[in-house]
Amino acid sequence: MGTGADPITRLIHELGKLPGIGERTATRLAFHVMRAPESLAQGLAQALLDVKAKVRLCSSCMNLTEDDPCALCADARRDPGLLCVVATPADLLAVDRGGAFRGRYHVLHGVLSPLEGIGPDDLRIGDLVRRLRDAEAASGGTAQPIREVILALSPNVEGEATALYLARLLRPLGPRVTRIASGVPIGGELEYVDQVTIARALEARREV
Amino acid sequence: MGTGADPITRLIHELGKLPGIGERTATRLAFHVMRAPESLAQGLAQALLDVKAKVRLCSSCMNLTEDDPCALCADARRDPGLLCVVATPADLLAVDRGGAFRGRYHVLHGVLSPLEGIGPDDLRIGDLVRRLRDAEAASGGTAQPIREVILALSPNVEGEATALYLARLLRPLGPRVTRIASGVPIGGELEYVDQVTIARALEARREV
Repeated sequence: MGTGADPITRLIHELGKLPGIGERTATRLAFHVMRAPESLAQGLAQALLDVKAKVRLCSSCMNLTEDDPCALCADARRDPGLLCVVATPADLLAVDRGGAFRGRYHVLHGVLSPLEGIGPDDLRIGDLVRRLRDAEAASGGTAQPIREVILALSPNVEGEATALYLARLLRPLGPRVTRIASGVPIGGELEYVDQVTIARALEARREV
Repeated sequence: MGTGADPITRLIHELGKLPGIGERTATRLAFHVMRAPESLAQGLAQALLDVKAKVRLCSSCMNLTEDDPCALCADARRDPGLLCVVATPADLLAVDRGGAFRGRYHVLHGVLSPLEGIGPDDLRIGDLVRRLRDAEAASGGTAQPIREVILALSPNVEGEATALYLARLLRPLGPRVTRIASGVPIGGELEYVDQVTIARALEARREV
């Protein structure tokens, strides 16, 4: 469908390129945009252009950011001795939304996946190692070394493999390497939780 | 959230204004846009702006269009004596997608709904009556009158009420006024069809 199509068909087509949005949903969204005030279309269009024009990677944590270093790395109230490693910027957002973690982050931009041909060199692992070494080297002065690396990777095959790989790689560099707990989610109904999660939750049981 | 927010947060916020898109989906879409080639964001942004800048109502059928009269009204192969009345441009698209109907359309832009304060004057009913009268008046020359008005309105309370109102209003002007059939959808499982639909399908049974 070229630029020759009428604007409505073209908008439906463009919306349909987004993941999880089929022709039906795209049509519904397009007609909503047409009924809505012009500011909705303009605001969304501007946000789409801005995000591509202004967003780059933070040279320290590799998160997507407008400024370098990013707001998280520049925040002096965040503990630089505590590093949370996540697979994607979306995962970082999910971890940070809760406000439970007040250290720094490092975004890998993926996980190890031999099946998809994704090895260590395809991820931001080299940058992570360099960051740990730099912090160690500078720790004589005003900076402090990284005491703990928390691996916040999804508990699936690729996440497990990546966590294992990173633990072996990073431990010799000095920090404690930990992994976020897996188990039954808070508010979850035991009845509907899968067996692997139940098994993991039993294994990791603690004294009350 | 003003324009001061960072581009990612702003895109998530703007996407979240679309119907049926919550914060989670908006976040997923925003990160997809950031990973995707720049052309995706640009194409969608341009389509959003175009649709608001270029789309207006066809002065004949009241459908959304770039040109006036619209492509459907300008298509000489379509029977001008057959008029299909729909509630919305989306409904028009749904009817026309099948290709089973080769006449003209008229879009009401809503249905009668006393509860929401939507009366006949809020819909494009006056334009419909004028269209029937004009076709009748011009039918002495090259034009032909409208022989049949097919009401393709959803089979719910508002759709039924609107169909009844239009039938009474339009029949004295000359045309046959018909309604699309309701019943068990093709490919539907009888087991899962609601009772009202079953009752309607039984009532409207036909000889095989």
